[in-house]
Amino acid sequence: MLTFYFAQSTCALASLIALEESGLAYEARMISFKDNEQRSPEYLKINPKGRVPALVTDRGIVTETPAILAYIAQTVPAARLAPLDDSFEFARLQAFNSYLCSTVHVNHAHKRRGSRWADDPAAHEAMQAKVPQTMTENFELIEETMLAGPWVMGEQYSVADPYLFTMTGWLRGDGVDPMRFAKATAHYARMMDRPAVQRALTIEKG
Amino acid sequence: MLTFYFAQSTCALASLIALEESGLAYEARMISFKDNEQRSPEYLKINPKGRVPALVTDRGIVTETPAILAYIAQTVPAARLAPLDDSFEFARLQAFNSYLCSTVHVNHAHKRRGSRWADDPAAHEAMQAKVPQTMTENFELIEETMLAGPWVMGEQYSVADPYLFTMTGWLRGDGVDPMRFAKATAHYARMMDRPAVQRALTIEKG
Repeated sequence: MLTFYFAQSTCALASLIALEESGLAYEARMISFKDNEQRSPEYLKINPKGRVPALVTDRGIVTETPAILAYIAQTVPAARLAPLDDSFEFARLQAFNSYLCSTVHVNHAHKRRGSRWADDPAAHEAMQAKVPQTMTENFELIEETMLAGPWVMGEQYSVADPYLFTMTGWLRGDGVDPMRFAKATAHYARMMDRPAVQRALTIEKG
Repeated sequence: MLTFYFAQSTCALASLIALEESGLAYEARMISFKDNEQRSPEYLKINPKGRVPALVTDRGIVTETPAILAYIAQTVPAARLAPLDDSFEFARLQAFNSYLCSTVHVNHAHKRRGSRWADDPAAHEAMQAKVPQTMTENFELIEETMLAGPWVMGEQYSVADPYLFTMTGWLRGDGVDPMRFAKATAHYARMMDRPAVQRALTIEKG
């Protein structure tokens, strides 16, 4: 049995959707960022980084969205959530997920998490001011060079799709009109039609 | 035949070492960040993100260090550069690489690449000032919770090792004394003893 730790309105949504798509049995446990539960001694025992998501397995704990997504795909090959038998296609999937975690998510985080990178409140304001620009540039690149359509990898749905869906869902809050990105917006709508996405969104509401 | 694009003193060193460890045939091509070659029209055709590393294969181009590292490991299973037959151990490896790319590398980048996240020069200074603190915290966590020893994954060397080696090599420039971290420092020295690492460092010098 798996236990999945998440918080609302975080990148953990991507793994939550992937779990729902996989058919794996798991228990979802919400922790409250508002109450700073991610820094509680109990949670730090699960993830010493004090972040979500974290997936507790019988073997140990997996953290970091790209690692969890690939793990879910490899654990349930029949769900066809990644091109497991083709190392080049798998690398293409991983490159996409890595771009989201190391560039897109990081840019987004400069809106509300500036204290990670500077102590000066004026610097936080300067970071916030640039978020619409960086997120726009990232999604232009996704739209032009990465999103094959209808799914990220092309005809085959994969764990990259819930990850992109999660980031697209952040655009409006980041001061970017998602409608600027026709392919990403269509992808978002396509995702909303999937029962697994609807179930994950219900779980995320708590 | 593979072609590997790198620049000096970047995270591309990790993939360069992994290529040398793998025994794969490849051509290394250095691009100059000083001459802004990563933004040249020729290079943007290879990697529209304008970053290194990029690995050109017969099938297409792979970018992003964690994706390239896993790709090299999967392409040469005999080199045993990743626990390919154990999805949990593979996830543990991936979680480590993901932490380096999305957290450690990002923190390091706030020293000289602050213009990615703010336009105000005062904000760049505020970011630079915090780099020693964030890098110290990251390496404390690596030392205490991630670096099994003698290699990252334990007894078995993997592609996580050149990646950690690359980041450990950045500490002094980031205002952190590497000697604070006994395990990471011993790991760095152990890496320096490997012929593949020495070859990669020679190639990196150009």
